[in-house]
Amino acid sequence: MSILLKNGRVVTADSDAVCDIMIEGETIVSIGRNLSGEGAEVIDCTGKLIMPGGIDPHVHLEMPFMGTFSSDTYETGTRAALHGGTTTVIDFILQKQGNSLRSAFEEWSGRATGNAVGDYSFHMAVTDFNPDTKEEIKDMIAEGITSFKTFMAYKGALMIDDAQMVGLMQEVKKHGGLVTAHATNGDMIDTLIAQHRAQGKLTPLYHYLSQPEVTEAEASGRFADIANYTGVNAYIVHLTCEGALNQVRRATERNQRVLVETCIQYLLLDARLYEDKVNGAKWVMSPPLREKKDQATLWAGINQGLVNVVGTDHCPFMWEQKLMGKDDFSKIPNGHPAIEHRMELLFSEGVNKGRITPQKFVEITSTNAAKIFGMFPRKGTISIGADADLVIFDPDKKHKISAETHHMNCDYSGYEGWELTGKIETVLLRGKVAVDAGETKVSKGYGQFIKRGKTNI
Amino acid sequence: MSILLKNGRVVTADSDAVCDIMIEGETIVSIGRNLSGEGAEVIDCTGKLIMPGGIDPHVHLEMPFMGTFSSDTYETGTRAALHGGTTTVIDFILQKQGNSLRSAFEEWSGRATGNAVGDYSFHMAVTDFNPDTKEEIKDMIAEGITSFKTFMAYKGALMIDDAQMVGLMQEVKKHGGLVTAHATNGDMIDTLIAQHRAQGKLTPLYHYLSQPEVTEAEASGRFADIANYTGVNAYIVHLTCEGALNQVRRATERNQRVLVETCIQYLLLDARLYEDKVNGAKWVMSPPLREKKDQATLWAGINQGLVNVVGTDHCPFMWEQKLMGKDDFSKIPNGHPAIEHRMELLFSEGVNKGRITPQKFVEITSTNAAKIFGMFPRKGTISIGADADLVIFDPDKKHKISAETHHMNCDYSGYEGWELTGKIETVLLRGKVAVDAGETKVSKGYGQFIKRGKTNI
Amino acid sequence: MSILLKNGRVVTADSDAVCDIMIEGETIVSIGRNLSGEGAEVIDCTGKLIMPGGIDPHVHLEMPFMGTFSSDTYETGTRAALHGGTTTVIDFILQKQGNSLRSAFEEWSGRATGNAVGDYSFHMAVTDFNPDTKEEIKDMIAEGITSFKTFMAYKGALMIDDAQMVGLMQEVKKHGGLVTAHATNGDMIDTLIAQHRAQGKLTPLYHYLSQPEVTEAEASGRFADIANYTGVNAYIVHLTCEGALNQVRRATERNQRVLVETCIQYLLLDARLYEDKVNGAKWVMSPPLREKKDQATLWAGINQGLVNVVGTDHCPFMWEQKLMGKDDFSKIPNGHPAIEHRMELLFSEGVNKGRITPQKFVEITSTNAAKIFGMFPRKGTISIGADADLVIFDPDKKHKISAETHHMNCDYSGYEGWELTGKIETVLLRGKVAVDAGETKVSKGYGQFIKRGKTNI
Amino acid sequence: MSILLKNGRVVTADSDAVCDIMIEGETIVSIGRNLSGEGAEVIDCTGKLIMPGGIDPHVHLEMPFMGTFSSDTYETGTRAALHGGTTTVIDFILQKQGNSLRSAFEEWSGRATGNAVGDYSFHMAVTDFNPDTKEEIKDMIAEGITSFKTFMAYKGALMIDDAQMVGLMQEVKKHGGLVTAHATNGDMIDTLIAQHRAQGKLTPLYHYLSQPEVTEAEASGRFADIANYTGVNAYIVHLTCEGALNQVRRATERNQRVLVETCIQYLLLDARLYEDKVNGAKWVMSPPLREKKDQATLWAGINQGLVNVVGTDHCPFMWEQKLMGKDDFSKIPNGHPAIEHRMELLFSEGVNKGRITPQKFVEITSTNAAKIFGMFPRKGTISIGADADLVIFDPDKKHKISAETHHMNCDYSGYEGWELTGKIETVLLRGKVAVDAGETKVSKGYGQFIKRGKTNI
Repeated sequence: MSILLKNGRVVTADSDAVCDIMIEGETIVSIGRNLSGEGAEVIDCTGKLIMPGGIDPHVHLEMPFMGTFSSDTYETGTRAALHGGTTTVIDFILQKQGNSLRSAFEEWSGRATGNAVGDYSFHMAVTDFNPDTKEEIKDMIAEGITSFKTFMAYKGALMIDDAQMVGLMQEVKKHGGLVTAHATNGDMIDTLIAQHRAQGKLTPLYHYLSQPEVTEAEASGRFADIANYTGVNAYIVHLTCEGALNQVRRATERNQRVLVETCIQYLLLDARLYEDKVNGAKWVMSPPLREKKDQATLWAGINQGLVNVVGTDHCPFMWEQKLMGKDDFSKIPNGHPAIEHRMELLFSEGVNKGRITPQKFVEITSTNAAKIFGMFPRKGTISIGADADLVIFDPDKKHKISAETHHMNCDYSGYEGWELTGKIETVLLRGKVAVDAGETKVSKGYGQFIKRGKTNI
Repeated sequence: MSILLKNGRVVTADSDAVCDIMIEGETIVSIGRNLSGEGAEVIDCTGKLIMPGGIDPHVHLEMPFMGTFSSDTYETGTRAALHGGTTTVIDFILQKQGNSLRSAFEEWSGRATGNAVGDYSFHMAVTDFNPDTKEEIKDMIAEGITSFKTFMAYKGALMIDDAQMVGLMQEVKKHGGLVTAHATNGDMIDTLIAQHRAQGKLTPLYHYLSQPEVTEAEASGRFADIANYTGVNAYIVHLTCEGALNQVRRATERNQRVLVETCIQYLLLDARLYEDKVNGAKWVMSPPLREKKDQATLWAGINQGLVNVVGTDHCPFMWEQKLMGKDDFSKIPNGHPAIEHRMELLFSEGVNKGRITPQKFVEITSTNAAKIFGMFPRKGTISIGADADLVIFDPDKKHKISAETHHMNCDYSGYEGWELTGKIETVLLRGKVAVDAGETKVSKGYGQFIKRGKTNI
Repeated sequence: MSILLKNGRVVTADSDAVCDIMIEGETIVSIGRNLSGEGAEVIDCTGKLIMPGGIDPHVHLEMPFMGTFSSDTYETGTRAALHGGTTTVIDFILQKQGNSLRSAFEEWSGRATGNAVGDYSFHMAVTDFNPDTKEEIKDMIAEGITSFKTFMAYKGALMIDDAQMVGLMQEVKKHGGLVTAHATNGDMIDTLIAQHRAQGKLTPLYHYLSQPEVTEAEASGRFADIANYTGVNAYIVHLTCEGALNQVRRATERNQRVLVETCIQYLLLDARLYEDKVNGAKWVMSPPLREKKDQATLWAGINQGLVNVVGTDHCPFMWEQKLMGKDDFSKIPNGHPAIEHRMELLFSEGVNKGRITPQKFVEITSTNAAKIFGMFPRKGTISIGADADLVIFDPDKKHKISAETHHMNCDYSGYEGWELTGKIETVLLRGKVAVDAGETKVSKGYGQFIKRGKTNI
Repeated sequence: MSILLKNGRVVTADSDAVCDIMIEGETIVSIGRNLSGEGAEVIDCTGKLIMPGGIDPHVHLEMPFMGTFSSDTYETGTRAALHGGTTTVIDFILQKQGNSLRSAFEEWSGRATGNAVGDYSFHMAVTDFNPDTKEEIKDMIAEGITSFKTFMAYKGALMIDDAQMVGLMQEVKKHGGLVTAHATNGDMIDTLIAQHRAQGKLTPLYHYLSQPEVTEAEASGRFADIANYTGVNAYIVHLTCEGALNQVRRATERNQRVLVETCIQYLLLDARLYEDKVNGAKWVMSPPLREKKDQATLWAGINQGLVNVVGTDHCPFMWEQKLMGKDDFSKIPNGHPAIEHRMELLFSEGVNKGRITPQKFVEITSTNAAKIFGMFPRKGTISIGADADLVIFDPDKKHKISAETHHMNCDYSGYEGWELTGKIETVLLRGKVAVDAGETKVSKGYGQFIKRGKTNI
């Protein structure tokens, strides 16, 4: 079966051309002018942009949490992602302290296999680095899991200490992998949470005040320091603020490169939302939203080439779940629904408002993630032999975000009522129309696990 | 007429695929697998890389100098460039102090028009910013000259002071252009030169010692400061050292982006060459070669995304011309021949030695320059409708650099005897085979002036 | 003749003790408890502080300006200084471009000799560094003028370029002297002034807007860079802002020490005063007043040990003189009257408000200046053999500043109506009561020229 | 009883005068010329310097360690200190994890009381911060123990985590105290030690290689970050390297002041000593000796005002004790004998070699420590009413350091055979000649516990 996209404006990180794209089976076979589409399904893309399908390297689907799960399953989550133009997501396997990486891999695979609508891969969060875990690193790489997440917060559950960090980095470096970090100082945060609770300061605002900028700046610097010492490839997830990015900037002075991901919410939302004692819970996530000056820093960082990726940290919970913390911010499940709107939000606020070029948009939503996480050139670009993961996008169409219309399994939206310019029209995943005009065209199980190779950027 | 490139490994800044490329007339019309090349000339590219033609944004051809000229004309210079895979060069028009920009433009155009073999464009070096010059800025942009070079050195000839710098930047910003700088502190350098001469320190080594790192670091910081104040897009040419790059890195902390070009020689050669009292003259250029630690900084800067472009500052002089300064370093014409070897040197030392990816190679030799200097997407990439400026490259072929075989009009080489891995086989410029198997296939006059638009990166 | 100060709280940079001080002739001969004062005049200091007389290293008395002079003569200026507890001032000799240092020295000495009430010395402002001037450096040091001021602004009148700066620094270093700088980028400022004037923006606010923070930060960095290269002892006068102090802070990372002076007004006043279109002229000075955040930086810098001295840049003009610029800020004579109130203002706002210790107060108003400018241990401390330059100070007495009561020859005050806690009661200069209970007790001519030695800190 | 010192050159942080000093009882009662010494013991100080007795704020006497103790008792240690001109030492009480501060205070007091020859005080090392300990902070301050030491290394024994650090800092700030830190990343170090041991790398060199610069730089930055967040007064003990001082320097940019102590060995010795597989053990201490470039940084830091104090971290062990680690560097007791030679070493290498002024010498060996640790103006200066803790010093006398002649209870010296210029002749402690011509003149028990107040600098 073949599909011919006609007359679209094809935008990638390094091109911008009106032409046709011919797809056969799962991959792109030719790109050109006036391609003959004999026997092919033809989609007229006149006036539309065609861009690589998005890659969201930071999502948590069906994540086990306090006896329940984050509210999007692999099915609902990857389907919503497809509706938003994101064709591949990378989820986090969370090792259980005391258990093996393998067992966690199996648990996560068990939930995902056969259920995903869109493509997915896994990072391995190493929460307990010990001689046994050390032996498993190369096995995980062989499984195509080449990035190892660390938590510098959540002591007793996910956090590893600096001793483990050094060891993990050395082992991952040996095998050519990547170490990523949730870089916040968990000890400081735990203290501040406890103090606020003891003082009866229990509203969402105190979630924010329990994670001041310094907690992230400090840990980002520490992570960079240890990475520099070990020489491993390093990547900071969901970086939110000036203090943290300045650590990365200063690390450049010793010739180090630290890769950086921010998330869409940190570019667009700010901490004033926490002043709402009820709804503030919608944006309770870690790190929290920051200030206007931090947004400015992140936009600048993108154009400086120092912020490489924009993800979401999608981790939705139903309002009922959020209400677990209605009397105590520390019990509010962390996370917000975003997997579906990253691309449209970033295009509308970034490209259409002149902050970034369309090429940069593709680079930070797709290409860089593909290169960093070892999926390039199969993913992240529009080129011959690449997976036909494509977004057909109307750059001028206006629409509104609403929980009533979104596809995520979440009964509210963090962006309710936002008016955007630019809309996903059609999405192809590996050569199939997956979404068109708001309808899902592929089923649960269509999404595949993507084995990943090494960082190549 | 059409050409079909078969089975090459097509490498751009964001792709890497084995496929065919179909060219009609001057542009690329399709890219794909198994393209039918009926009626087309077919070039078998099996085992070869196909990459975008190089763009060298820093060359001086037939540059007037002390009653003579730099030794490559537009003909010999652009021909040598083509032999080295560089299909477009950007030369510098030097305003004569007291005269108009227009008259300088005409003088330079007069020398170039009808003589170039490869494509070319111009930067305008504003050496005398005054109310008249100010009026000409928008005219030059209308002519497709959108980048304005400043010299912070060479007082009395090329240098503008900071008062002129502020004014120029404001005017260029108003019209959306780019300001570039030779960022060294000319006053300090003039003093050191005079002191060395007064002390009878006249060998090439004192050229180096007259331009210590601080002279470049200081001026780079000052240029960034003024640019930040005015808000203009800023670009530092031929940045060579840690001190200067650190100024750019520190400027990131105030959310500024300063674009950076280094040149191939600063990545590969170092100041020990100046110890040779005779041959040292071959590498007398400004800024001078630096130290090993500076090379490390520049390679790191490339991978950090902070060094955006690798050019050459090609400005060759015959040995006889160099001998004008055999008894006094300050009389040695500045510059060295490099236009022909930038691409092969960088591939061999960069890609083949694992310092950079092939994608990064394309980015810094072509794509970024096209975006920064307003030629994208016509130049700098391989995409539909783009100029068919292509390099067919054998990544494994070994060869030696020698003045005996190079095409530059210069009777020595700065890289004599260097053994490289990877060789340009065939070069296409706007759809024509321009160089093949060491022979030039297009004539003087084939090269066109490229009108440029605004920075788009 | 001898004087015995009884029961004062003697505060110096490194002591704090209730005791007596015995003075014979011009110097202190003993410090102790229960000193017997037979034959001595006894001054009861119970409940009072006794501190070293202040040193103001930045004043302009009777400074020639546009055919007139700053309004305080050596007589009125040093008398006012004494009333404010400042027993020694250092004025600036301004070389006239084209003329010798010697001739300027003679001109200034001519005005000062026999007229000063308090002690004084001179810095030499080198405004034209050339082979002749170079020869005079060691002569000036022999005359006791060991500090050489440079202006990086006021082109055509006072400014030297970086070529002269390098040469001057090298020569001064050779002879062990100190180079100081008015570190602002004159070229940038000249451009901004011209632009504001061309746009009809003529009120005092545009004085401020013509000298944005970057103009000072840039020049401070440049001055530090060149000083670091030459190795000379360097001192920045009247540093006002975060951007400039950060340059000094960053220079510490290369193991450089740059000495820093701020002035009392930059600690206490801010740029909102320029919004008054008429009275704004009172604070027109260069650099201008800055922002609240800059005040915070300067107070922090003092306690960090990085801001070493608090001076005044006293340069008063009568209101009539200020009115020369009533229609054009660029014609307002620069400067404000402050020589009399530095000590009381700093004690009241600094010590009494808990920002600095009494020891730090003495250090930055007297001791450091004595050490930096080669007058230690004769001046700047209370020790045996030192000049009996002493301030007897009531730390609790409240009073108001007013032009009606001040002793400066200026018909307005920049601090009119300020209520201060802490008042100068009695001032001794070289063993004589110079001021007591608001009355001057010594005459014109009592003040001596102080030959200075080398920096010793 | 009274003593009259005649004709000495009295040097303090802010004075330099030839005069006499009269002592009655324990304190100084007058300073002057030609003081009459009727009834007093007269000591002729002609040609000698008289300086404040040294304060060494970093010593470990009779420190419990693996069932034994560091080899100097309060008697031998403070006696040796006196021989070296150090009249006051501050030792570290080490809380035992699980036990109270009070019990540790009693244990340490028990060892010290009645045994010290020289004056002493205590820092409290809080190794277990919990709700009970929190309550004790104000009690300790009431006892005159106003500085609280933290260890960021030695997990399981002394280390507190960042959660405890935040809490401790908040509590100490509340009561106006000071928090100090052994700022090295213990987790990283533990990992490196374990790795070296596992690899059979057991010589002293691996002690050094287990504590690379980054381990100190990282922790120094983290300590500064948390201190800045809490607003507490912060002090880093035994800072050794460029990386760590640069963290302090960078912290100045956010208007923070972090007080810094280095130790004499870090200024004078370097890591090449660890290459000796046997004797290397003599210098096994934590942090280890560093590189030449770090020495340069520390000397610069002193003159920049950023390194405030030079101590010793005196913690001697007999050679037999050191041999516990002859087969495994990790078992070598950490520390070296230095309490006796700090002053003479620093004068000889610092003042006599022109690196620092005599005033700076006094400042960093005595005055600053007195101010920082709340003993000023009783200690740290020569002024009326201050303790007559004085050193009579011959600045020109040459002598050699040797274990055969030193007074420390240690059978080797880290400086064996060093030739020094400048020798302690006589030392007074609280008005008594404590040491004279190499003989101890006061007995065990003469030394008193000094209750300290708050930081006052």
